Amino acid sequence: MKNYTIGVDLGGTKIAVGIVNKENKLIDKGSVPTFSERGFAPIMKDMGELINSLLNKNNILIEECEYVGIGSPGLTNTETGYMTDNANLHWTNVPMRTELQKYIPLPIHIDNDANVAAWAEYKLGCGKGTKNFVAVTLGTGVGSGVVINNTLYSGSHRAGAELGHMLFEKDGYLCGCGKKGCVEKYCSASAIIFKTKELLATGKYNDSVLALINSDILSARDVIDASKQGDKLALDVFIWYVDNLALFVTSIFNIFDPDVIALGGGVANAGEYLLAPLHEKIKDYLLIENVPYAKVKIAEMGNDAGIFGAALIGK
Amino acid sequence: MKNYTIGVDLGGTKIAVGIVNKENKLIDKGSVPTFSERGFAPIMKDMGELINSLLNKNNILIEECEYVGIGSPGLTNTETGYMTDNANLHWTNVPMRTELQKYIPLPIHIDNDANVAAWAEYKLGCGKGTKNFVAVTLGTGVGSGVVINNTLYSGSHRAGAELGHMLFEKDGYLCGCGKKGCVEKYCSASAIIFKTKELLATGKYNDSVLALINSDILSARDVIDASKQGDKLALDVFIWYVDNLALFVTSIFNIFDPDVIALGGGVANAGEYLLAPLHEKIKDYLLIENVPYAKVKIAEMGNDAGIFGAALIGK
Repeated sequence: MKNYTIGVDLGGTKIAVGIVNKENKLIDKGSVPTFSERGFAPIMKDMGELINSLLNKNNILIEECEYVGIGSPGLTNTETGYMTDNANLHWTNVPMRTELQKYIPLPIHIDNDANVAAWAEYKLGCGKGTKNFVAVTLGTGVGSGVVINNTLYSGSHRAGAELGHMLFEKDGYLCGCGKKGCVEKYCSASAIIFKTKELLATGKYNDSVLALINSDILSARDVIDASKQGDKLALDVFIWYVDNLALFVTSIFNIFDPDVIALGGGVANAGEYLLAPLHEKIKDYLLIENVPYAKVKIAEMGNDAGIFGAALIGK
Repeated sequence: MKNYTIGVDLGGTKIAVGIVNKENKLIDKGSVPTFSERGFAPIMKDMGELINSLLNKNNILIEECEYVGIGSPGLTNTETGYMTDNANLHWTNVPMRTELQKYIPLPIHIDNDANVAAWAEYKLGCGKGTKNFVAVTLGTGVGSGVVINNTLYSGSHRAGAELGHMLFEKDGYLCGCGKKGCVEKYCSASAIIFKTKELLATGKYNDSVLALINSDILSARDVIDASKQGDKLALDVFIWYVDNLALFVTSIFNIFDPDVIALGGGVANAGEYLLAPLHEKIKDYLLIENVPYAKVKIAEMGNDAGIFGAALIGK
């Protein structure tokens, strides 16, 4: 009996593996550091060994497992099992499937990490029961995954659903991708930090509590916390950010008109404190009145979204 | 034998009807003025009579027809056959299907006019053979239709695929929809006219040939023609416009990553004169190098796209 699936969340700093049973419960999980500078083969070997040791520890035979799902950064090819491009790991066209099968003789499914996290949220989290669903991650960048007609969508060349790089402001802030004005420069956690520093540099907010924090360690959470205390700078940044997010969300309405939009990542930890003003602001930007647009919710799957999504990617 | 389908292109100024055979050839077409101020019932009666007279003229029996497809402006509900909202015709929640069936006892399919035009382009025009396809119309506004996995996509509440109202520039030009900075204000034919007038008003282009044209009748074609003659103002506007369109197209790459993007509407009549610099500019804005992004093409279906798309909407 194939009672289990294995999910792998491959990141730049760690490889996390989890075993999920037929009831979608996480049986056990473990992780090892990626040491990404080692290159492809030793990392895949560690991944294989971590899977095998986790199976052994839980007395699960490889024959009891249906497949391994890998959520990987970069551009992946679901059909061939190759990762075709990855900026963080500096891998190009590596055969992830066949390399892992040297250690784990199971079917291997591969998808992009943002897709995999969205899939977890769609199958088990706040996207459960929807048909069309968009998950965005408000972290260092803005990640996204899109489910259309109950299927993950990533376009004809697997380069779609990159909503963080939609245009947000023509001739706006320069993005790491080389283009100016991407959504990511306005809606990520990094955008909150960037805007805070920009406003601090004007010299108009010298009495802000945020001026006392070393700018190298200033976080989006610091800014959101300070805004709760009524700090003027923090509030100005927060209002700017909520406005941006409302514009981004309504663009998603106009593009995908999904059932639910899930907000995840660091900024989404603010929960209702973010959602309440966001819902208010969204009303200003609706294209059509009296249409029941998507519900905007906080993602529920947390840190294990990558493992769960990878483990469920074949379902 | 059901050898024919009937396509209706309902517009604010005319109702156009065409009969299409099994080989996707247009047998005949006709039109009557809409006289939109008359309201719903008399317009649907004229639509029914136009269909019947066109069938009679071509000696086609109603029994030989499979269905009628209607491409309608506004928000339509494919399932119920209602048009739920339309700003131009001032109709709200009208039962188009049952009303037309008073005159034409056939199945009636209804969809949005932009979707229907995209469907024609997908089935018979430059989107033929694709799986994922986006058509945008660069006219008075920016219309759009999206085909995903060989199916028209318009979202969970039929409010999606409105790419003309994606954000293009935060705090940008005020759009007719009430929001600032929509794509439509930068990429429509109207945007070309608007920008030309804005630059004329600066007083820096008084020697432009466009300064001699009555501003009430200035058209996007006038501007494009003048740019071909080397007129400085027209060239500045054209370069601005091509840059906008490149940013819009690359946003579509990042969102949908389709096989083909079709450009239709008045501006697209410029053909290669528009496409050549557009292709050059797009290269500056690509997110991932070495990915074969969508082909950007000029739409092929012309003025009959609405009729063809409606006639093929059930296929």
